[in-house]
Amino acid sequence: MERVLDYSRVFTQAIERLHAEGRYRVFIDILRNKGNFPNARCFAGHNGPKPITVWCSNDYLAMGQHPKVIAAMEDALHDVGAGSGGTRNIGGNTHYHIDLEEELADLHGKDAALLFTSGYVSNDATLSTLGKVLPGCIIFSDELNHASMIAGIRNSGCEKHVWRHNDLAHLEELLAEADPDAPKLIAFESVYSMDGDVAPLADICDLADKYNALTYLDEVHAVGMYGPRGGGISDRDGVADRITIIEGTLGKAFGVMGGYIATSRTIIDVIRSYAPGFIFTTSLSPVLVAGTLASVRHLKSSSEERDGQQAAAALLKTMFAEAGLPVMASTTHIVPLMVGDPVRAKRISDILLAEYGIYVQPINYPTVPRGTERLRFTPGPSHTAEMMRELTDALVEIWDRMELRKAA
Amino acid sequence: MERVLDYSRVFTQAIERLHAEGRYRVFIDILRNKGNFPNARCFAGHNGPKPITVWCSNDYLAMGQHPKVIAAMEDALHDVGAGSGGTRNIGGNTHYHIDLEEELADLHGKDAALLFTSGYVSNDATLSTLGKVLPGCIIFSDELNHASMIAGIRNSGCEKHVWRHNDLAHLEELLAEADPDAPKLIAFESVYSMDGDVAPLADICDLADKYNALTYLDEVHAVGMYGPRGGGISDRDGVADRITIIEGTLGKAFGVMGGYIATSRTIIDVIRSYAPGFIFTTSLSPVLVAGTLASVRHLKSSSEERDGQQAAAALLKTMFAEAGLPVMASTTHIVPLMVGDPVRAKRISDILLAEYGIYVQPINYPTVPRGTERLRFTPGPSHTAEMMRELTDALVEIWDRMELRKAA
Repeated sequence: MERVLDYSRVFTQAIERLHAEGRYRVFIDILRNKGNFPNARCFAGHNGPKPITVWCSNDYLAMGQHPKVIAAMEDALHDVGAGSGGTRNIGGNTHYHIDLEEELADLHGKDAALLFTSGYVSNDATLSTLGKVLPGCIIFSDELNHASMIAGIRNSGCEKHVWRHNDLAHLEELLAEADPDAPKLIAFESVYSMDGDVAPLADICDLADKYNALTYLDEVHAVGMYGPRGGGISDRDGVADRITIIEGTLGKAFGVMGGYIATSRTIIDVIRSYAPGFIFTTSLSPVLVAGTLASVRHLKSSSEERDGQQAAAALLKTMFAEAGLPVMASTTHIVPLMVGDPVRAKRISDILLAEYGIYVQPINYPTVPRGTERLRFTPGPSHTAEMMRELTDALVEIWDRMELRKAA
Repeated sequence: MERVLDYSRVFTQAIERLHAEGRYRVFIDILRNKGNFPNARCFAGHNGPKPITVWCSNDYLAMGQHPKVIAAMEDALHDVGAGSGGTRNIGGNTHYHIDLEEELADLHGKDAALLFTSGYVSNDATLSTLGKVLPGCIIFSDELNHASMIAGIRNSGCEKHVWRHNDLAHLEELLAEADPDAPKLIAFESVYSMDGDVAPLADICDLADKYNALTYLDEVHAVGMYGPRGGGISDRDGVADRITIIEGTLGKAFGVMGGYIATSRTIIDVIRSYAPGFIFTTSLSPVLVAGTLASVRHLKSSSEERDGQQAAAALLKTMFAEAGLPVMASTTHIVPLMVGDPVRAKRISDILLAEYGIYVQPINYPTVPRGTERLRFTPGPSHTAEMMRELTDALVEIWDRMELRKAA
């Protein structure tokens, strides 16, 4: 061969593109302190760990340190060991998995549930398999759907129509244009995690009824946090029975790790029998499953954590608005501050960490569209008013220092 | 609409197809007993748990009950809590993750490593992303590659050529036919888990050199078990430095859960920056990471578990062969018995469990090709000669009862 391809040059160029756009990401090196969330230790760039306050965790209700969760995980660790040792079909099914699936089915008022190793895999495996089992299926997808839903829809090979975010008129327009006899699936989220707004679930269900479509709802940023038992927005709005498939995570409000779907027994049977992403992977560690079981059960009967989170979010939004900071119009527990530029967003985050011991990650493309880069705060029941005051004061100082124009 | 599509009928028919083929799968409900592997309790269809012996776990070295692993997980649980609370980029990176990645990079003699939530996700995310970053890349895939590699290759959108299993002449034929200037990637496994045979790594590397191809090696059924430090077959054969990317799992010989790749720092940077399956998912629980760290470190310096496993596998193969059972020609720790029919394979498994308290899962399509259905035994250091004698006697009795022709 005359000309030999230089692979490392191709890879290096891919990385250089990220640097040029100011969106090269660096992992921050931290350890949270159990019993003392949201406090943590930061390792990177310091001599020894430095204390920090975490403002961007998705362990929204601090269940990752709840005594019941820790005790359940410790018991499972001593009773059955570390890993499951296999796939669900081959040696890796345990009594904990079965119990948790029953608990999650009950949480959503469904026949059955199925665990996956992550919420990402739940979405990818379920959507891609549904599309293959329903020949000719057309999938209608909200434009702000999560990357994992987009992956599942693409991997399904189905025709896809993207509707403008939460725009029901547009959704209906697309449904009406489609072949009436074709199988249809409407895929959407309840709480959109980067803006903090909520989909009109009942109205979407009305359209699904009218056009005989299945509904697929991602509740990962809502389960545990909304509804009298923590069943999510579909629980709060009383429409869970109208949703075909509800998808959730064990790694955010429930504080552990993993994902799941809850739906009819037949659909569960189809997914567990046909989805490679379910079949060919080691099942969740029984230690994680035991911890989640305790967490789900606790949040079914306790609203203290949910109330604390809502109070914290309301207070932080008020403080930000009163300080003239550009807080975005969220109707949920998520509190985003618009920056609009990847380099500035990272700079603010760096100053907060280095000078104030405050950790909030800049949110850049591809997580949000270019030009809408932001800081995203997730206050929870363990964030105190004093912490919020310190945070607000720090942001005001940085906004002044960087000469960023204040909102309104 | 005149005719309304009946979704539940489509789903029910999908399940009926599995029943008709005799490959509908039922999860067995078990709990292993820590400190007493391979013993376990079986719940399904009995009054109260019944004691069983597990013969099909992929916790090959029983590290899932190792005191160092349990202690490390307990410490992490009490130090930092249950879940990571976020993605690696947003709040979910911890010092444990960084330490484990360094340990795994060292295990394979590579610059860097990257953790994923599972081995499945490692393969899917890495292969699909590599294909996208290398425009025009052609992927050469062994025909027996795992479902997760097949998914990643399909999702890469690359041109794919499948070479006959371990057939180097065929691989070279395909390489020689391809555009010399196109980027190329050869994807293969070291130990093929359902047959127990091993790829000729050095010869494949020779071909990669000759045709300027990258190499991607799945070592999930080898890491921890082969090589002086448990670095897999590439460690045993001294060719790790010739493999571009080594992929492994934390959920089999290391006894916990999760997956990883080890490669150059630049490629790690590309994958962690571009792969949606890495970026958009909650990171591994620090509890799992801490346990794996203890497991990897232990197996780097201890060969006792590896030696015990090899001795157990050799003894069981001999017993099976002497009893005239159709043991397949495995050169590794995996001991498959050919049955060749899904209904019979399940029947044998059912009798073993119900009458003998022996648990081994039947392996049916799509895990193996139709007509090669089998039982797959994974003896490890905790399986005693007495257990093997009981297993062999039980199989001989069932083989006689079912009038299955004996081998040779």
